[in-house]
Amino acid sequence: MLYEINEKALKLESEGKKIIRLNLGDPDLATPPEIVEAAYTSMKAGKTKYSSSYGENNLRQKLAELHGVKAENVVITPGSKWGIFATMFLMMKGGGNVIIPTPYWTAYDLIAKSLGAKTKLLRTELENDWKVDLDKLKCLIDEDTRMIILNNPSNPTSKVIDAKTLDGIVEIANEKGVTILSDEVYGTIAFTKTKSILDYNGGCKHILSNGFSKTFSMTGWRVGYLIANKPFVDNITKLNQITINNVPVFIQDAALKGLELQQQIASKIKAKYKKRAELANKKLSAAGFKFTKPDAPFYVFPKLEGLDSEKYTLNLLDKGVAVAPGTAFGDYREHFRISLTAPDDQIEVGLDKICEAATQ
Amino acid sequence: MLYEINEKALKLESEGKKIIRLNLGDPDLATPPEIVEAAYTSMKAGKTKYSSSYGENNLRQKLAELHGVKAENVVITPGSKWGIFATMFLMMKGGGNVIIPTPYWTAYDLIAKSLGAKTKLLRTELENDWKVDLDKLKCLIDEDTRMIILNNPSNPTSKVIDAKTLDGIVEIANEKGVTILSDEVYGTIAFTKTKSILDYNGGCKHILSNGFSKTFSMTGWRVGYLIANKPFVDNITKLNQITINNVPVFIQDAALKGLELQQQIASKIKAKYKKRAELANKKLSAAGFKFTKPDAPFYVFPKLEGLDSEKYTLNLLDKGVAVAPGTAFGDYREHFRISLTAPDDQIEVGLDKICEAATQ
Repeated sequence: MLYEINEKALKLESEGKKIIRLNLGDPDLATPPEIVEAAYTSMKAGKTKYSSSYGENNLRQKLAELHGVKAENVVITPGSKWGIFATMFLMMKGGGNVIIPTPYWTAYDLIAKSLGAKTKLLRTELENDWKVDLDKLKCLIDEDTRMIILNNPSNPTSKVIDAKTLDGIVEIANEKGVTILSDEVYGTIAFTKTKSILDYNGGCKHILSNGFSKTFSMTGWRVGYLIANKPFVDNITKLNQITINNVPVFIQDAALKGLELQQQIASKIKAKYKKRAELANKKLSAAGFKFTKPDAPFYVFPKLEGLDSEKYTLNLLDKGVAVAPGTAFGDYREHFRISLTAPDDQIEVGLDKICEAATQ
Repeated sequence: MLYEINEKALKLESEGKKIIRLNLGDPDLATPPEIVEAAYTSMKAGKTKYSSSYGENNLRQKLAELHGVKAENVVITPGSKWGIFATMFLMMKGGGNVIIPTPYWTAYDLIAKSLGAKTKLLRTELENDWKVDLDKLKCLIDEDTRMIILNNPSNPTSKVIDAKTLDGIVEIANEKGVTILSDEVYGTIAFTKTKSILDYNGGCKHILSNGFSKTFSMTGWRVGYLIANKPFVDNITKLNQITINNVPVFIQDAALKGLELQQQIASKIKAKYKKRAELANKKLSAAGFKFTKPDAPFYVFPKLEGLDSEKYTLNLLDKGVAVAPGTAFGDYREHFRISLTAPDDQIEVGLDKICEAATQ
């Protein structure tokens, strides 16, 4: 239903209707001009040739420093989604199952299905602050379980996993010999301290997935990275060699420029989205929605008892606001996801219409 | 051995040794500046967001016009290699075999193996002008055969499949209900008329893979496309959605600019490589190598009776010239591949050293 809503929104726009698009995690902010200029400089310098399937050394080195690992633990991917697909492609070969807490980012499930892997969904609830129940996790792991995918902070709840729960998850995974793939693409811009999977076991026992899309407003550039142990990085690189070959070097140079400016860019983005989240908190609370306050950009995942979010979403789209129904993220019919990624004035109008539509 | 030689060449260069690199199909020509400028203009215009997993409409439309198909038959991929992987990922799911004429581009075999698909190699010989034997092809197809991969013009032989043989291959494939994936990435810059797979059966019964790397010196940009029937294009797009998402729009705008300038760029490239091929013909013939004259850029695939091409290649590398051993393209120990993708003066010196080393 996520893609259908988006296609419908695009169609309505092409017919001349004005749609406030709060349905996708694509920041309204432009890519910072310094990053665009870095790409241009690199292109003009002829960095337009085949290059390493590991990624460029200078970018890997810089990421290694930032994450406290070695450059050999870093591999550059065309978007973090590719890193997740590639990881599952290698890990799930020939069967097995993967545990995914819900609500989840739709792609995890679609990727698993495309690879013929079984998914075991681990339900979390708003009423329990979206916490993973460690006993349930333990019971869910069986001898065919190869991976657990964490999304921390989470899309769609924008909730950060608290340190104690994360400690517990890692402990269980280690006990059972199951690899964690931790997708931390919203980590750098989280409003609260977020523990990384790299904080455990000297770094690279598990796998970190990250990208430049959200922090640097670079969604369409398609550049991300994985951090893992060296043999796994080598295997991802071998897969890169027979698929995407390499991320364009000028795009990697642009990403490197982003990292140099990370502090200022990230703090600007955090401030902007924090303000938007506060506005959403206020309006949605007043209208009687239940939700956890976002710990990170960009999403709120409100619930209204008895809501049929698919009907609600379609109805809201007719009123000029696109959001995503809860069913796109698992079995969450009473929820929907608002993405606070439109200009401020549009968000304000959009939130008002969301609240009106719910009380009608 | 292809990658090992390349790594060794890079290592020698990093140690300060001068290496003439005739081992990779990466044109020495720079990407035309008009293409670089088109990318920059597009970036600055904010075309840095998520976009369609089909590719941009204007690029698909332009490619459809050039190939005489509909835009719905075109899907944009991050390099032609991704298109080939994606096609095999979808076609070979759950088993089956794929027929690949040899000598082949190494990636076909590596991709098949990564997907657990069986390959059936169909040997062709220099002595028979690298022609596919139609009877052998017919015998090789069994009930598990799902695909035939053609590379026309061929890497490493630079030979174009003659019209009669291609007619025969297509007829057999159609009779047996086997899909042809035709990789025609060197087609636009071939020296001789090259029949396309799209010339058969009203266009999209089989699958065309193509890219911008070779024609527009855009190897590092990672942009290519597939042409196929609409349901298959839809399935590739679904795979794109959960893997690479989209090729950066500014890169697609750059590719579109390339297509606008195609005639002038392609004829310039053809003229340059034709001259290089003639030089190689002359020098290699004089030194007693046997080979077919290239019908297209960039390769020559000479044979010398009794040659151990792996030893020869390593020996040659010590003398400062990198080429690829025949064993990288199948069971062709007496052959090696020269890629005429270095500046003219280097090619001349390189060819002389190649000839000297063979007579020692």
